[in-house]
Amino acid sequence: MKIGIITIGNELLSGFTLDRNAAWIGQQLLSAGMKVDIHHTIPDDFADIYDTLEYQWSRWECDHIIVTGGLGPTVDDITVSAFIEYFDDTDKFDKDYWDQLSDRFKKLNFKMPNLNKNQAFKVKKGNMIPNKVGSARGLHYTKEHASFFKGVKAMVKKTSKVVNFYALPGVPKEMKSMFTNYVLPEIEKTNLNKVVCKSIRTTGVPESILQEKITDIIDSNKDNCDIAFLPHRMLGVDIRITSKNAKLVDELINTIVPRIKKYVYGFDKDKLEQVIADLLLKSNLTVSTAESCTSGLLAARLTDVPGSSKYFKGGSVCYSNELKINDVGVKSDLIERYGAVSEEVAGALAKNIANKNNTDIGIGITGIAGPDGGSEKKPVGLVFVGIFYQNNLYIKKYNLTPDRITNRELTVILCLNEIRKILRNS
Amino acid sequence: MKIGIITIGNELLSGFTLDRNAAWIGQQLLSAGMKVDIHHTIPDDFADIYDTLEYQWSRWECDHIIVTGGLGPTVDDITVSAFIEYFDDTDKFDKDYWDQLSDRFKKLNFKMPNLNKNQAFKVKKGNMIPNKVGSARGLHYTKEHASFFKGVKAMVKKTSKVVNFYALPGVPKEMKSMFTNYVLPEIEKTNLNKVVCKSIRTTGVPESILQEKITDIIDSNKDNCDIAFLPHRMLGVDIRITSKNAKLVDELINTIVPRIKKYVYGFDKDKLEQVIADLLLKSNLTVSTAESCTSGLLAARLTDVPGSSKYFKGGSVCYSNELKINDVGVKSDLIERYGAVSEEVAGALAKNIANKNNTDIGIGITGIAGPDGGSEKKPVGLVFVGIFYQNNLYIKKYNLTPDRITNRELTVILCLNEIRKILRNS
Repeated sequence: MKIGIITIGNELLSGFTLDRNAAWIGQQLLSAGMKVDIHHTIPDDFADIYDTLEYQWSRWECDHIIVTGGLGPTVDDITVSAFIEYFDDTDKFDKDYWDQLSDRFKKLNFKMPNLNKNQAFKVKKGNMIPNKVGSARGLHYTKEHASFFKGVKAMVKKTSKVVNFYALPGVPKEMKSMFTNYVLPEIEKTNLNKVVCKSIRTTGVPESILQEKITDIIDSNKDNCDIAFLPHRMLGVDIRITSKNAKLVDELINTIVPRIKKYVYGFDKDKLEQVIADLLLKSNLTVSTAESCTSGLLAARLTDVPGSSKYFKGGSVCYSNELKINDVGVKSDLIERYGAVSEEVAGALAKNIANKNNTDIGIGITGIAGPDGGSEKKPVGLVFVGIFYQNNLYIKKYNLTPDRITNRELTVILCLNEIRKILRNS
Repeated sequence: MKIGIITIGNELLSGFTLDRNAAWIGQQLLSAGMKVDIHHTIPDDFADIYDTLEYQWSRWECDHIIVTGGLGPTVDDITVSAFIEYFDDTDKFDKDYWDQLSDRFKKLNFKMPNLNKNQAFKVKKGNMIPNKVGSARGLHYTKEHASFFKGVKAMVKKTSKVVNFYALPGVPKEMKSMFTNYVLPEIEKTNLNKVVCKSIRTTGVPESILQEKITDIIDSNKDNCDIAFLPHRMLGVDIRITSKNAKLVDELINTIVPRIKKYVYGFDKDKLEQVIADLLLKSNLTVSTAESCTSGLLAARLTDVPGSSKYFKGGSVCYSNELKINDVGVKSDLIERYGAVSEEVAGALAKNIANKNNTDIGIGITGIAGPDGGSEKKPVGLVFVGIFYQNNLYIKKYNLTPDRITNRELTVILCLNEIRKILRNS
């Protein structure tokens, strides 16, 4: 089975926007045991869209062609017209959908502009793909593969099959929702060469060390099984095991996990914050935070999980020393003696915030995110995390990077992983 | 003039690696006043490379075709063979370059692996592009545009011209060095039509409403100027103006901005949080936050800007009612009477946090992020933002979406935009 992607937009070609949509679709397909064969990025141009559909269909003989972009309500959005022309179809105004859209705009206190009328249509030969998170619906057409284009060097095969064409919005949130809920299930229906793909999620360990620990397993299974290492976000590596033999995949997971147990936080789509949420809920524990350099990022991450009010009470964003002292009760002479970025202050933040908010766990974070504020003794990237739990104080010291955004995000992930380890061992 | 890019690699198609090379080349060309017309991402496959060269040359009629990837010493690097075949050329061992390479390896105390012998060749009809930072040299061929491919919908023109083909390594450092030192100067030699590109950044308004307000301007300039709408993150839309006429671009910006003034927060690469930071610093104002449903996201965003400690003191993440009362001093009977998600509580959070932390501005946020916790009267997506400044209380009520993550991020952006408007008007 062959899959093609067409991403549309001058902003992609000019490098104004990085093409994360195509990469995301590639990842999703790979997780589902399939791969992308060809990807075109083309301008917002009618003839280019038309010809590229034809080219992926004929030269590349794709079974599924996924187009993203050009479904918005403005003039430069011409994917729909190209599809309608390509499939020799017509569209008409969809009164029901128009009423739904008007209603939605009303709730947002905007008068519905007439332009959005472009989005309230339906086609005759194709299906409309529902949009759960935006206004432009997608399109799904099928077409019998009947004629052939002879590539200069490509083999010409004579087979007949049904080819699926999907038009999705370029807005990532809308595209992802439609892809997950509609396109992927459609593709999976036609996929006969299914492979099983499972992932072991790890954090706090580099790829190369993970690999070293299981080299013998990789070697002895290389004919039946693909084992890949996917660095995922910062400091997270997934070990992905792909095979046609589902039983083998499970066996390998059971062999690999014990060897790297302390780095494993979950499987497949598990998220670190959800794993921690489950651990907290299981033990009926509450948590609060006192954050300086991460300034609310940890609190935000802990509450990404629905229902987080059951374990998270809140906390302090004590960015200034004034608030560390007045709000979290850190003694000013502690700051004077050791500095705001110190083991001692991280510990005091953790202990005091737990006491102040009457929670089982208190977390304190203080560090130098950068780019300024570093010194020879305390360089940019120096971060202390304190975790107070069951009258114990756990302190971690990190020397991270010169980059502000990276330091803040890394600190949150490292801190979440420490919480996980402490809860798992207790 | 038309420019095409071909990036080669299975790891790009699977989304394992984000295609930053193509984006980078697009940016370089745009900065030099040119744009990319087509970009293909294809597998490491001889026939695919050969056919894609042919396709960009014939259907797209590119003047310059830039290929990256597949020049390394390992087996899956087959770009060179595809080029040699495509141009009906031959290569031979290049003793001089082999000696240079051996010498370089020796200096690094490595024995030169035989694999690198693949890289010590030269072609007959094309030029070798020097590599200042690595071992694989690039290729440069030219070819007269002599035959035509008829796109199904594309116009067929009969002109004759010389087309340039470049093969560059996929390693970013090597690709960038060759592009800057060799390819860009070659392209610039042939470029007679430079373009200028500027953006107006807006927020808090849908794309379609923006367009309606400037439809006449778009129409009356469509022959000389491209005006595009780029939805960027949530609720942010850039209006990008591209033209060969630099004066016209400036004139259009001066005509468009007054019509949509209240939505414009900046130009080109300006960020909303940076714009607010500048406004706060200019007036020497400080700010603190009391966040319930966003749980630290606003504080984190305000401190994404380096040096934010000059205006941001900190705040409270008052996720539970207990903390709204004990930490931010909201009266419990206010919560009982109006509910925690209410205009009154948002106002109290804003006012109290400013007083508690002694800042000029206080911001309070309370809402129902979802997916649970909604009721008929107060559905998921209901959010109140309070801003206390100069003894005035500004309250905004929003009915957002059913999605938790979206509601939290949208709230932060809408709130930042309110702060911007209040500061700009004061």
